[in-house]
Amino acid sequence: MTDKNWVLAGDVGGTNVKFAAVANDGTLLHRLSIPTPRSHVVTELENAIAGAAEECIAALPDSDRPKRFGLALAALVNGREGKILSSPNLPELNGQPLAERLAAKLGLEVVIENDATAAAIGEDWIGATADVDTSVFVTLGTGVGGGLIIDGKPFRGIDGTAGEIGHICVEPEGHDCGCGSHGCLEQYASGTAIVRMAKESYAASDITSAAVYADAKAGNAAALEIFNHVGRYLGIGLAGVVNLLNPEMIAVGGGVAGSWDLFSGPFRSEIDARAFKHPAERVRLVKATLGESAGILGAARLALGPDH
Amino acid sequence: MTDKNWVLAGDVGGTNVKFAAVANDGTLLHRLSIPTPRSHVVTELENAIAGAAEECIAALPDSDRPKRFGLALAALVNGREGKILSSPNLPELNGQPLAERLAAKLGLEVVIENDATAAAIGEDWIGATADVDTSVFVTLGTGVGGGLIIDGKPFRGIDGTAGEIGHICVEPEGHDCGCGSHGCLEQYASGTAIVRMAKESYAASDITSAAVYADAKAGNAAALEIFNHVGRYLGIGLAGVVNLLNPEMIAVGGGVAGSWDLFSGPFRSEIDARAFKHPAERVRLVKATLGESAGILGAARLALGPDH
Repeated sequence: MTDKNWVLAGDVGGTNVKFAAVANDGTLLHRLSIPTPRSHVVTELENAIAGAAEECIAALPDSDRPKRFGLALAALVNGREGKILSSPNLPELNGQPLAERLAAKLGLEVVIENDATAAAIGEDWIGATADVDTSVFVTLGTGVGGGLIIDGKPFRGIDGTAGEIGHICVEPEGHDCGCGSHGCLEQYASGTAIVRMAKESYAASDITSAAVYADAKAGNAAALEIFNHVGRYLGIGLAGVVNLLNPEMIAVGGGVAGSWDLFSGPFRSEIDARAFKHPAERVRLVKATLGESAGILGAARLALGPDH
Repeated sequence: MTDKNWVLAGDVGGTNVKFAAVANDGTLLHRLSIPTPRSHVVTELENAIAGAAEECIAALPDSDRPKRFGLALAALVNGREGKILSSPNLPELNGQPLAERLAAKLGLEVVIENDATAAAIGEDWIGATADVDTSVFVTLGTGVGGGLIIDGKPFRGIDGTAGEIGHICVEPEGHDCGCGSHGCLEQYASGTAIVRMAKESYAASDITSAAVYADAKAGNAAALEIFNHVGRYLGIGLAGVVNLLNPEMIAVGGGVAGSWDLFSGPFRSEIDARAFKHPAERVRLVKATLGESAGILGAARLALGPDH
């Protein structure tokens, strides 16, 4: 028996379901990743999650058997009520009492959270924003998500939907967005947006955002210009957040954060050009540090509870 | 002697210095308004504020003599440190220890606050947002200001500059703004913006925003279109805030809020079209209720302290 306190943690996205056992010092064990069932049948997704959970639990000695389970979801979540409000990528979860059903199935207390808010909590726990009280986490992946830490605590708004930084308008007549609006930051700073911009400017139809990054690093001017765009639009959207919240730090995670060297310059310039002098000088813009584990670690942090 | 607890409260804008004695039930007495000295000499402004303060104090019976003084200022303020960071309209205050000097001069404890944040606190105390915990206050006047109430408390950010809703970008290549950026909400939803739009579309050079409102009410299509624009751009900027903060209520105050009947429709439509369904349905958009007294009442509330 160790002196650590273990919880189970998962992160359910549109592509993969990631799992680990997590200790109260942030140790991650028995990591696994399975493809998210494509059937969009809720019982199949539940069974996949429960199966992964049991596999993680079985790998721990009995003495370390977790009692609590934190689950990050690519969905608008009302964590206080354990309710899933909606999920564009996992529509089978809309309105489902997933936490309740998993708790019954696994015999664990289950807490659910929006995945970007969970990642913000993870970064605030042992990542990029651990040393500050008020921070904004932005994740640039297939879409653009976000989470807010205010006075050391996650801020979720009245129903748990706060933090949707990707759906701040940066072009009032801009590209249609999956959220139903148009001109959202997500349409200019996500991996999907990078691919669209590459196709519009120079690339063949099967390009990936990683390939656009490689092209830019190799000196392709059109590819470089795309990362200037990403940084510029991030700056337009986040300058408003800097004026609104006067945060100490903005941390950028997600797959596209791997291109930080190419977009962080224009991102900083745009913040300095657009936000008020004092909050612009105050805010530190950094790359997040927990990578793909941020969501799992944040979910674990929630399951561990405030006194873990 | 009454059983009320009295404080002194002031609201210093670019045009007027407003004062009142305020009781812990929100009673306002001995209101006065004097023109803000135009000299931009800091001692003149200090003397004007101190003179008005003494006039208010003299009007109260000795037994009700206030011990504390709350002062709202058209400036970026770090209230925790009693510091004025900057003020475009009252540049003589930049970096001045105004609170300290007024305290020495008047023999009162002095607390200072940004005027829009003070107004948000006033509305949260006994105005439009009193019954909700998380709200956004927007003031549409010469400029556009704002204040945030999060979990029942004013949210000021790390240095006190939070809430600058007027400087969220709504047109990335839009009109130059006094803040140094361009395309800010202030350039599309303030009284100044209404006048500019009227001159661009139909009016003589000496029109006021009140006259544009009267023209619109009389059926002038160009004037009506201006209020559609105001509502639309408010919606573009605030839809992002709704996605970011998931607030219960947005209250709109300031002189332009008098045109609520003309711009609230397009404001609501734009929020519904652009924000996520759940937070859009949740947020109530209302006209603020305290009018010109919001700032004074908020400053008073701060001076009364949490246990008033």
